[in-house]
Amino acid sequence: MAVATRGVLDGLRILEIGHFVAAPFATRLLADLGADVIKVEPLAGDPARQWGEQVDGHSLWWSIHGRNKRVISLDLKHPRARDIVLGLVRHTDALIENFRPGQLAKLGLGADVLRGARPDLVIAHISGYGQTGPYRDRAAFGVIGEAIGGLRHLTDHPPGTSDLPPVRVGVSVGDSVSGLYAVIGVLGALWQRDRAKGDGKGRTIDVALTESILSLMEGMLPEYGALGKVKQPAGGGIATAAPTNAYPTADGAWILIAANSEPLFARLMQLIGRPELIGVPEYAGNQQRVANVAALDALIGAWTRTYPVDALVQMLEDADIPSSKVYTAADIAADPQYRARGMVRDIVDPNFAAPVLHTGVVPHVVEAPGGVRWAGPAVGAHTDAVLGELLGLDPAALAELYAERVIG
Amino acid sequence: MAVATRGVLDGLRILEIGHFVAAPFATRLLADLGADVIKVEPLAGDPARQWGEQVDGHSLWWSIHGRNKRVISLDLKHPRARDIVLGLVRHTDALIENFRPGQLAKLGLGADVLRGARPDLVIAHISGYGQTGPYRDRAAFGVIGEAIGGLRHLTDHPPGTSDLPPVRVGVSVGDSVSGLYAVIGVLGALWQRDRAKGDGKGRTIDVALTESILSLMEGMLPEYGALGKVKQPAGGGIATAAPTNAYPTADGAWILIAANSEPLFARLMQLIGRPELIGVPEYAGNQQRVANVAALDALIGAWTRTYPVDALVQMLEDADIPSSKVYTAADIAADPQYRARGMVRDIVDPNFAAPVLHTGVVPHVVEAPGGVRWAGPAVGAHTDAVLGELLGLDPAALAELYAERVIG
Repeated sequence: MAVATRGVLDGLRILEIGHFVAAPFATRLLADLGADVIKVEPLAGDPARQWGEQVDGHSLWWSIHGRNKRVISLDLKHPRARDIVLGLVRHTDALIENFRPGQLAKLGLGADVLRGARPDLVIAHISGYGQTGPYRDRAAFGVIGEAIGGLRHLTDHPPGTSDLPPVRVGVSVGDSVSGLYAVIGVLGALWQRDRAKGDGKGRTIDVALTESILSLMEGMLPEYGALGKVKQPAGGGIATAAPTNAYPTADGAWILIAANSEPLFARLMQLIGRPELIGVPEYAGNQQRVANVAALDALIGAWTRTYPVDALVQMLEDADIPSSKVYTAADIAADPQYRARGMVRDIVDPNFAAPVLHTGVVPHVVEAPGGVRWAGPAVGAHTDAVLGELLGLDPAALAELYAERVIG
Repeated sequence: MAVATRGVLDGLRILEIGHFVAAPFATRLLADLGADVIKVEPLAGDPARQWGEQVDGHSLWWSIHGRNKRVISLDLKHPRARDIVLGLVRHTDALIENFRPGQLAKLGLGADVLRGARPDLVIAHISGYGQTGPYRDRAAFGVIGEAIGGLRHLTDHPPGTSDLPPVRVGVSVGDSVSGLYAVIGVLGALWQRDRAKGDGKGRTIDVALTESILSLMEGMLPEYGALGKVKQPAGGGIATAAPTNAYPTADGAWILIAANSEPLFARLMQLIGRPELIGVPEYAGNQQRVANVAALDALIGAWTRTYPVDALVQMLEDADIPSSKVYTAADIAADPQYRARGMVRDIVDPNFAAPVLHTGVVPHVVEAPGGVRWAGPAVGAHTDAVLGELLGLDPAALAELYAERVIG
């Protein structure tokens, strides 16, 4: 199963003291790119191992979420755990954690202690609201970060359209986006620390779920500040560009069409048999089209309603107009582009009888693409190997730690 | 206006040849963190300058989208543009672009030419489907990437609940997430190039909007592969955890409650006066709660419906249960936590009479937080300064280029 593919982060070592989604997502990206990631789990394992569909007690998501990492089990509340962590920190470039602010310090692992073991350690904290400020001690999950960051309000039909609640995107985007920002902070700090003209110093990254989502909100905040305009959800469309929406098809599906530029709009009007609308004042320029979007969407929808979705995709592709059906998991698994680029791949995982369908490594680094070296490992799979290699513990010392329930 | 704050990327120079959202978003993050970003625009400016609300012809979004960058105007189709770009590349660590695959090569700026000028250049491409594979030449925008990545299908109510289309999240998350991945690829490549044990080599990052979104899809793909299960949207909730949803309030708003762990569930049942449900088989453990989520959500909703949203937020906070109202732009602007952490700030922008409300710098790097050195600049604001500083062009040489309409 091992694939000897060089990754762009070969030579980097990361320690994860995390759980659930955000920190483990960040470290999985780093591991995919070649870093040696050591994940510290409680003796019972990360609770995320219980999430989602299970086969014979094994989580399918974990096959991806834990891949390429080495996992050790350690009871952080045991008095002997601290020295083990500090021993690992000595051999570590960066530590990523997502406990509540202050929790690591309570365990005797505050930044001063960690940097006593490794002065140039980069430390990334991920939390709901950040490490400072009046809300720092509040509990938060991804869903809360998405709401406070402004995303949830916008993920809805326009006001008055529906009595249903604003929907959640079906994945924990608050966690994953904050994980991406943590990776950016860590790599930026490592570049500045390690480059020839760098200063050799460790730095501290303080990522909040709320702020990570807020940073994606484009013009929402300046438009409110200057004009008092409270940005509202736009259903299937987008408030600042037209035409771009989901349109109904003859076979009861939806087709997405994004024709919000001058040449695309013109090609679309040709295609739907309305060339006389090219250049008329109501539709000349994006701002005019946004102002008249209801009428424009209605005439596009009247056309899409007369064809099945596959025929529409073909016609729009032939006209070089960005479009797509709404892909499900089945569409993704069958898509030739994803397969051609290794973004959907079959990975051997000893926990399952058949290979497991994984997503590939993003971003794709052409000269050093990394790869899937192994699927999400069992609890404690690398405890002996990591503590032997990095701390020099022999079998007798390990046996004692097992007997005392320090490690698992 | 200039704030002399050190950024973690001080000393890094980035060239952006991009437009619209993805590449400019990536470079704005790098600029926020301290990099010297030079954005190459057409003589008329990036079309994104026309997006969103305008005041006296100035875009409020641009105040953020263009901040901290130096902008030069250059007609890339002019025969003399190529040497100017190559002159800039000589002084550049990394180039980020988001034209259609092959477009830069058509302009005489393929990777071989660029690396002729700067052998260790890191190059990041962002495109809809990636630089290779059968779909590489197809047009795509963020909305298409979101649909093909699987996000759009999940951003909806459960099948059969509503006749309305799946909504789009109100921002271009396909673009911004691919921008985040491009930054990760660039910083990873720079670390490997520049560290003491590094190899000094440039690398190529190939980011697709579709794949960037797909990478966030958690267990969707392995669950389909192993079980044939096509993940479906879950409306206000999430399919793998319970209880976590948006619940109605007495004053017609929604309250988000995320109590999907054992201690949180117990505290919530205490709070709503149903302690007898703690530990009953239907609700013991997350998987049981997911199986019985409709009944569970109904009893939580019956409680939330009896209080206004502000009272609910206070009660849930006192009980240490993650919760939130659904923040709008107005809520964000008034939030004390965002203000305390500099994540909502007033920035002087000479294009506007009053300071403009900006989001802060994410991720927060404690020892080198960067800052907003200037707001989005006017078209061509730094053409003279950049070409003078990096190419040594004197006023006479610049005047000739202006006269020939090479620069603007």
